[in-house]
Amino acid sequence: MLIQHPYLFFLGDVQDQLAAKTALGIVDWRPDWCLGQMRLPGAKADARLPEMKPGEAAQAGARTMIVGVVNAGGVLPPHWIASIVEAMEAGLDIASGLHIRLGEVPEIAEAARRLGRTLHDVRHTSERFATGKGVKRSGMRLLTVGTDCSVGKKYTALALEKGMRARGFDADFRATGQTGVFISGRGVAIDAVVADFISGAVEWISPEADARHWDLIEGQGSLYHPSFAGVSLGLLHGAQPDAFVVCHEPTRTRMRGVPAALPTIGDVIHLTLACGRLTNPAIRCAGIAINTENLDETAARAEIERAATTHGLPATDPMRFGVGPIVDLLAATYGHTLG
Amino acid sequence: MLIQHPYLFFLGDVQDQLAAKTALGIVDWRPDWCLGQMRLPGAKADARLPEMKPGEAAQAGARTMIVGVVNAGGVLPPHWIASIVEAMEAGLDIASGLHIRLGEVPEIAEAARRLGRTLHDVRHTSERFATGKGVKRSGMRLLTVGTDCSVGKKYTALALEKGMRARGFDADFRATGQTGVFISGRGVAIDAVVADFISGAVEWISPEADARHWDLIEGQGSLYHPSFAGVSLGLLHGAQPDAFVVCHEPTRTRMRGVPAALPTIGDVIHLTLACGRLTNPAIRCAGIAINTENLDETAARAEIERAATTHGLPATDPMRFGVGPIVDLLAATYGHTLG
Repeated sequence: MLIQHPYLFFLGDVQDQLAAKTALGIVDWRPDWCLGQMRLPGAKADARLPEMKPGEAAQAGARTMIVGVVNAGGVLPPHWIASIVEAMEAGLDIASGLHIRLGEVPEIAEAARRLGRTLHDVRHTSERFATGKGVKRSGMRLLTVGTDCSVGKKYTALALEKGMRARGFDADFRATGQTGVFISGRGVAIDAVVADFISGAVEWISPEADARHWDLIEGQGSLYHPSFAGVSLGLLHGAQPDAFVVCHEPTRTRMRGVPAALPTIGDVIHLTLACGRLTNPAIRCAGIAINTENLDETAARAEIERAATTHGLPATDPMRFGVGPIVDLLAATYGHTLG
Repeated sequence: MLIQHPYLFFLGDVQDQLAAKTALGIVDWRPDWCLGQMRLPGAKADARLPEMKPGEAAQAGARTMIVGVVNAGGVLPPHWIASIVEAMEAGLDIASGLHIRLGEVPEIAEAARRLGRTLHDVRHTSERFATGKGVKRSGMRLLTVGTDCSVGKKYTALALEKGMRARGFDADFRATGQTGVFISGRGVAIDAVVADFISGAVEWISPEADARHWDLIEGQGSLYHPSFAGVSLGLLHGAQPDAFVVCHEPTRTRMRGVPAALPTIGDVIHLTLACGRLTNPAIRCAGIAINTENLDETAARAEIERAATTHGLPATDPMRFGVGPIVDLLAATYGHTLG
């Protein structure tokens, strides 16, 4: 799956900013790819992009319209269909993060066929994966793991891509979730893969590469999340990372969505090492990313300092203070992979 | 999914006994449910059941014809279709373990509609699962886990069902793989579930129950198998077992299908306890099931004795020597759950 950019965002008439989270994430990381937004009357979400109709967006160079909003139940409201067909008529492909497949809507399937447009369903994949082989692949890999869901694993991997490239590493972000797929234009939403193929799909996402190349693989869930730990473990085994960064949100009091206690950063380091050695005996922890968005600067610095001291590892908030300390450790440890 | 028995087995014209493994497994555990087999000219597989045409089987009381053979690539050979339609015309439902859905074959879908028959695709599920909640459910649960795939997890759970019932426990086998689903007439092939819902599907398979009731849950894969460990972990978290039995095949030298070393029984006990505590802090190991089919009796007894001594746990080969020692420990530890 390779999604052509630049993008026009279709925000429909969703009622809050949270529903546009995917669009906002793409704007954060790939502003150059984001030309405009199209909204229906009554829309409350705003990606802060110029309003455009599909024809104008196509004129300006857009290649794909992204239906990047989440609707209740993941369904496609019938009154959105005309806008999607209009975009295809203007020359755009369509990419969707909805649970329903675009091609299941007869009008959309028919228009795509008639106009020769591509429909991308990021939550689905037509790729046939093999089961994981577990054989070490060439190239270097770093995986972001977490004490919980939604603690900054994607943003940490993206910040590392930027920071490592700036320091001379040959590094690429590898998406495993829908927003990440839109940000990189490729990848697979790993939680939508059939269970037997989790690690095999990750092997496909991060294939054999040059010995000095780094894949920065977006983690999912947590080995300690009772809903999603299976996905996290399959991802760890398929990624066979040389290095991992633990992501943590220090103000959270319980696991997202379930009445379970949060593990400590130490717990996550311990279990990730224990399980990760199965497919890469050289695995090591390369740092801690603390998401401090709910802390003032003094508290944020104290929290980071405490994590660094407790674990003897570089710690930072990648979004607030940069990834410098982690990249320093990578350069010191794996300097031979520098370009 | 509830598959009505008794069964007629359709063995097609497959060329070896291995292809009929599912049918043979059902005959082993539910002989009373197995009325006959139907084979096409040239068939080499044999479930050692009376040969019957669908009409005869229906007359004898059969309710479902099971397409219990594995064909290369999981496809349905076109020359099997007429037999399947014939079975529906005789009044039978159809249950299949093929990768392809029966309903994808137009002639089969049309006949099912016309005759009002049910099509069961055991490798697929139309059930909508929730993500795992991780909340402790009432009732007792035992999970079979393994050092590898195909070491006897299903047979151990089934042998425990029989042995525990004989000793007064209220116990039910819970299937998580296709043969197990045919054996129990219900369940879900967990490796075919979308990754996000592994633990949620297991919560559905083994719902809240009477405080003294035991679910004996069929394990899948191994926490140490690089292809399938994600499935095994999601299964462990969803099963939230009070007790687990480690299954092991002592003559194996590497993991099935991959060039990876086998873990020890001790490794598996350690990691199962470490991960299982997340959804059931009371989890404990209740025994070791050694699959000794490749050993003579002296070697088998020595291997079992060694495992029992090393780990201070009951050990046995459930198929060769019965599950007595494990049920003794369960009775001693959880006697309050005896009926």
